[in-house]
Formats: sequence, C-alpha cells, structure tokens
Amino acid sequence: MNNFDYYNPTKVVFGKDTYERIASEIALHTKGKNVLITYGGGSIKSNGVYDKVMASLKEYNVLEFGGIEPNPQYETCMKAIKLIQENEIDFVLAVGGGSVIDGTKFIAAGATYAGDPWDVLMRKEGCAFTDSLPFGTVLTLPATGSEMNSGAVISRDELKEKRTMGGPQSFPKFSFLDPTVVATLPKRQIANGITDAFMHTLEQYLTYPTENKLQERIAEGILMTLIETAPKVMEDPSNYEHAANLMWCATMALNGTLRAGVAYDWATHMIGHELTALHGIDHARTLAIIAPRLYEVKFENKKEKLVQYGERVWGATDNKAQDAIVKTKLFFESLGIDTNISDYDTNNADTPKIIRQRFEERGWTALGERGDLTPKEAERIVEMAL
Amino acid sequence: MNNFDYYNPTKVVFGKDTYERIASEIALHTKGKNVLITYGGGSIKSNGVYDKVMASLKEYNVLEFGGIEPNPQYETCMKAIKLIQENEIDFVLAVGGGSVIDGTKFIAAGATYAGDPWDVLMRKEGCAFTDSLPFGTVLTLPATGSEMNSGAVISRDELKEKRTMGGPQSFPKFSFLDPTVVATLPKRQIANGITDAFMHTLEQYLTYPTENKLQERIAEGILMTLIETAPKVMEDPSNYEHAANLMWCATMALNGTLRAGVAYDWATHMIGHELTALHGIDHARTLAIIAPRLYEVKFENKKEKLVQYGERVWGATDNKAQDAIVKTKLFFESLGIDTNISDYDTNNADTPKIIRQRFEERGWTALGERGDLTPKEAERIVEMAL
Repeated sequence: MNNFDYYNPTKVVFGKDTYERIASEIALHTKGKNVLITYGGGSIKSNGVYDKVMASLKEYNVLEFGGIEPNPQYETCMKAIKLIQENEIDFVLAVGGGSVIDGTKFIAAGATYAGDPWDVLMRKEGCAFTDSLPFGTVLTLPATGSEMNSGAVISRDELKEKRTMGGPQSFPKFSFLDPTVVATLPKRQIANGITDAFMHTLEQYLTYPTENKLQERIAEGILMTLIETAPKVMEDPSNYEHAANLMWCATMALNGTLRAGVAYDWATHMIGHELTALHGIDHARTLAIIAPRLYEVKFENKKEKLVQYGERVWGATDNKAQDAIVKTKLFFESLGIDTNISDYDTNNADTPKIIRQRFEERGWTALGERGDLTPKEAERIVEMAL
Repeated sequence: MNNFDYYNPTKVVFGKDTYERIASEIALHTKGKNVLITYGGGSIKSNGVYDKVMASLKEYNVLEFGGIEPNPQYETCMKAIKLIQENEIDFVLAVGGGSVIDGTKFIAAGATYAGDPWDVLMRKEGCAFTDSLPFGTVLTLPATGSEMNSGAVISRDELKEKRTMGGPQSFPKFSFLDPTVVATLPKRQIANGITDAFMHTLEQYLTYPTENKLQERIAEGILMTLIETAPKVMEDPSNYEHAANLMWCATMALNGTLRAGVAYDWATHMIGHELTALHGIDHARTLAIIAPRLYEVKFENKKEKLVQYGERVWGATDNKAQDAIVKTKLFFESLGIDTNISDYDTNNADTPKIIRQRFEERGWTALGERGDLTPKEAERIVEMAL
C-alpha cells in the first residue's frame, strides 16, 4: 500500500429540511454578521432553494453575487473579491453546483490574499494561498464533489488559461446536501452528474493493484451503487432515496477517500478537457467519450484491474476485462449520453492531431498512473472516439 | 436514507517511515515548545516507537506521562492534567493504543476545563467540554478506531463508573498510522484488534435496511477485507501489506463513515461490557461471545440484513441468514478466540441474571437498532453464551 495523508475537515449536513441550520453553522466560524451569497445563473431563485436559504439567514446582513459561469472566470471572481473587501464580508456561502463552489474557493482565498490572486494560480514563485475567508456551500447539483474537497478550477478565457488551486485552507467549513434538489434538475444534468461521479471513481480505481484492498472495495461500492441507482433516478428524480444515493456517491467519489494509498490516472480528464475547449462538449460527456477508448489503448497497463472491475462490479464471467470496457460504454449510453465526438460536432478531422500538439507543446509526455501515456497515444485515443 | 452529519477533521498520516514528520505536524497547531507524551505500560520503549518519536521531537521540551491503564482511570488522567497545568504544556502526543488515546482525550479536554472534569462525564447540568488542548496520536495497535474519532471511555473504579465523552473539540489533530507496529504485537492483541474492527462494522451494518446503499457497500468492503486479511496477518504480522490493510480497516470501521445515514445497534457492546466487568474477559472477546447469540435472539429484526450479509460477504447460497451467523462465529474462532463464557470462567451460573438485573436497575429497556432488546432478552443471550 502506498503511504498517504488523509485530511478532510468539511462538515457535511446531509438530508432534507436541514437549511434552517445554515445560520447556526455559520455562527461556528464567525461572529461577524456580513454574509455574501454566491450563485450562478439564477436557478436557485426559481427552484425554491434561495428562499429557504434566505429564511435561515434573517439575522445576517446578506449581499448577493450571481452570475458565476459554468467554467468560473477569473474576471468574474475578481468582482466578487472587490465586493467582499468593500463590504467587510465575514463569510461566503456558495449556493450552487461545482462551478459556483469552485469559483467561491478562489474568491474566498483571493479576498484574504495581499497580492494578485492570479499569481497564485500561475504558480509564480513565492505566491501561495495560506489563508481564506471562511465559506460554506449549499449544493444544488450532485456531480463534481467540490462540496467536500479543497480543489477548484478557474478559467481566464482572455489568456486561454484554465488553472487549478487547492490546499488545506480551501475546504468548505460545511456543505448542506439536500437530495430533494435533484428533482428540480434537467435530466441532462442528472446524467452528467452520474457520469462525473462514475469517472471520478474510475480514475482512482482502474489503474494497477496497490494492495489497498479496502479502498478498492469502496470504489467498487460507489460504482455498483451508481449502476443500481442510475436507471431509477433517471426514471424518477423525485424519488428521495434514489436522489440521496446519487448525491452521496458523487460526494464520496472525490472527497479524498478513494485516492488514499492507491495509484490514480486522470488522463481521461486531461484529454476530455481538450474536447470541451475545442468542441464545447459538456465536461462529463467528454469523459464518457474518452474513457472506453483509453482503456483499449492502455489495456495491458490496466488489465489486472479491468479483470477485477469486470468481475466484481459487472459480474462478468468471460473476457472480463473486455466485457468491462463494453459495459462501461453501454452504461453511459443508457443515460442518453452519446459517446462519439461526431455526435456533437462533425467538424473534427483535425481534433486528434491538435490535441497531440497541445500536449507536446506543454511537455505532457507522462500521463496516466504509470506516467507512460504519450501525446501520440492521446491522439490515437481521440481518433478512436471520432 | 436517514439524515446525517459527517464531520471528521483528524489528519491521518498513513505509512512507514513517517514519524519524522511529527514535529512539523505539531507546529501546525501550536507555536509553543512544551510537549507531553502520554503512553501506557511502556511497550513503546522496547519496540522502538519511543526512540523514533523522540528523534522527531528534538526541538521540543518533552515531558512524559506513562502508566495509562487498559481501561483508562480518572485518577490517573487527573495526575496528567496536573502535570500539564504545572508545566504549561502546549501539545499532548498520545503514543499507544485505544486506551492511551481515550485517556489523552480526557486529559487534553480536562486540562482546559475550569471545573472538575468528572462533572462533565457525569453529565452534570451546565457542565460540558467545549475546548481542548490540541493533541495528536501515534497509533501502536489497530483496533478501537479512537485515533480517528472524538469518543473516549473513562473509568473510575472506586465509584464503579465507566463513562463516555466526545464532541467536536476532541478529535486528534493528527494520527500517525505506521503498519510496521503490527509486527511487534502479541498475536492475541492482533486477534482482538481484528475482532474489534469486525464488530464495530457489524454494529453499524447488521440492523435493518435504510436505503443507504453506499454505506452498506463500504461496511461489506471492510468485512470482506478483514476476512481476506485476517488469516494472512495472523500467519505473518511482519508482512507490511497485510498489516496495512488491517490497520486501515480498523480506523475506517469507527471514524464516522459507516454510521452516516444508517441504523446502528451497539447492544453487543453493552452486554459485552458487563462480561468484562464480571469476568475480566478482553473487550473484543466479549463481542465475539455475544454477537452470534444476539443475532439468533433478534433474528427476525435482522433477517433482511443477515441475508444480504450472508450473500455478499460470505458468498452464502442456502439458508443465507443462518449461514452468516455460523460463519461469523467460526471466523472469530479461527483467530483463536473462544466464544463461550465458560472458556474463560466456569463460575458463571448467575451471570445471565446479574446482567439482566443491572440493565433493569439502569432502566435500559430499549437497546438495539429498534429499541426493543429487553433485559430479559439480554439474559437469554448470555445464557446461550455460557
């Protein structure tokens, strides 16, 4: 088993009818009364979440900052930081999905940072977040797991940059997870959320054996629960039990548990990001497009775990490894997710080459759990996915 | 799924050759230089752990407090509190197993408490721990899970009292888990540790279905990993991978993960505690004695989960529920653990009645996940275990 650190101080409040506790949770972290609510496109004002959150905050002075984009933008976040500094905000409450929460992590850390927070994202020497304004989240979309980790991805389109941040200062103090929000979501978002959680798990599981038997069992548990839950929650998102199982799986898939002591891949994500950049395909869908092909190309690398995955998760009896790949692809398709690039954009002939070149330009020659997935192989994977 | 809160801020540092990081982890929580090391009977001085810990602390002024008992005593802990207050201790480092860590939780919280800490354990009105001196742990025995939760049990033999404490202030700041310590343990302690972890899991799993599919899978994952690991680690405790799997299972079995959103029992523990009190039987062994009989007596209550447990964990195909009970008992016996009271003490004819009377005197009429295990049933369970 590999050595590992595990640390996750986020308090999860899971269940229905819990939002009335938001104020008392905030009070554990600040005596101040000035709260900034951050959100995205405004769906929280039509689905009832906003009203319930505000009802809990009646003892607070609440400012609002809406309009955080699906890929949260640096410029947008900087406006929120200015608002915080001008209004002596004590606590930030993100109400939304992964993008709103990611943006809020940058906003909260940036608000306490003396220099230009962009320098931190660019890893400029001597620049790092070591502090953050305290913040919490009210999750409205099970998918990214951002509600229980410290990571965030921030974009700056004018510079064509997409940068990551994280660290112990950037965990939410608390996250409210109420599965009833699932009933308010378009099915496309539910399917994306299931895929996102499934792929977060596979990236940390479908590598090579590292003798961490329990972490493998937990990963298999998430995958089996998602496979069991997916058709039910797609059929009836208003069923509380199915929504709850989906929501908890999505959180557990990326809260640090699965990565403890094992190898991880993440190459599907890195190739997938390029498909979003080039063709505007939803993030989760890019993962469903790339993963089955990546598993074919890196078959020998992953064979032992593919056999285990096929056997334990899919109940495969013959050709377990191959069967596991086929069933994974069919699973995504059963959610209504197309798994070829041409289903989204037929203008794609140069895509494999462009992605290879981008990886080469960045010096990315060592992707995957064994550090041996080359730009040439990335090109081949994308070709197979056209 | 039941509503739940999940909160666990303990940082786990897992693996070999990590103790050199102890000093830097302490420095994250105090600028002070006075550290108190707490320990038990002194095995840390013969197995090499003490020397490695001290090597990391060479920049600190270290005081020592040894002699914390297997069931940590109030009077002993109060001596440590006095030592802390007289020496302006900034941080406490528990080096030991569950009892040393439990005692240290009481010591660290008690040291910052203005009144008599015993009042807190007795739930005297207005008395509660809300603060604690920061403390960390170096675990030397995988078993109780105390290294990653906030709970502790403190005894005061002169008053025949055994009391519990816990709360958000009492999580270790960090815990160092180095599986190489397993090689230094007597096999009896390893067997007890496996049993303790197994039973912590069953108490939170073998109840009734609550639709939390993932938590059930995680519990089954711990049980399957323990079943796979147990014969190997008993055979060769110096094998790092087996020791590591045991150690991580024991921590995960009682760090708050399994209880999230499910029903829990704990009646086996409550009856088992009486066997320790009456016959001096090791805690883990009392659980192995009681559980199989309790599952017989509460068979109808637990039938659905017993079937699932038999099927998924033991691969049972016929009489799954009954088979699960039989296999559980045989598993404990395979570790060299005797599962009848008479194996430990033949002077036991009155034990069932005494335990019923004790439960009745305390008004314990509602044990178990459904609150319907009566003192009369406890008597019957103990009778079956004679």
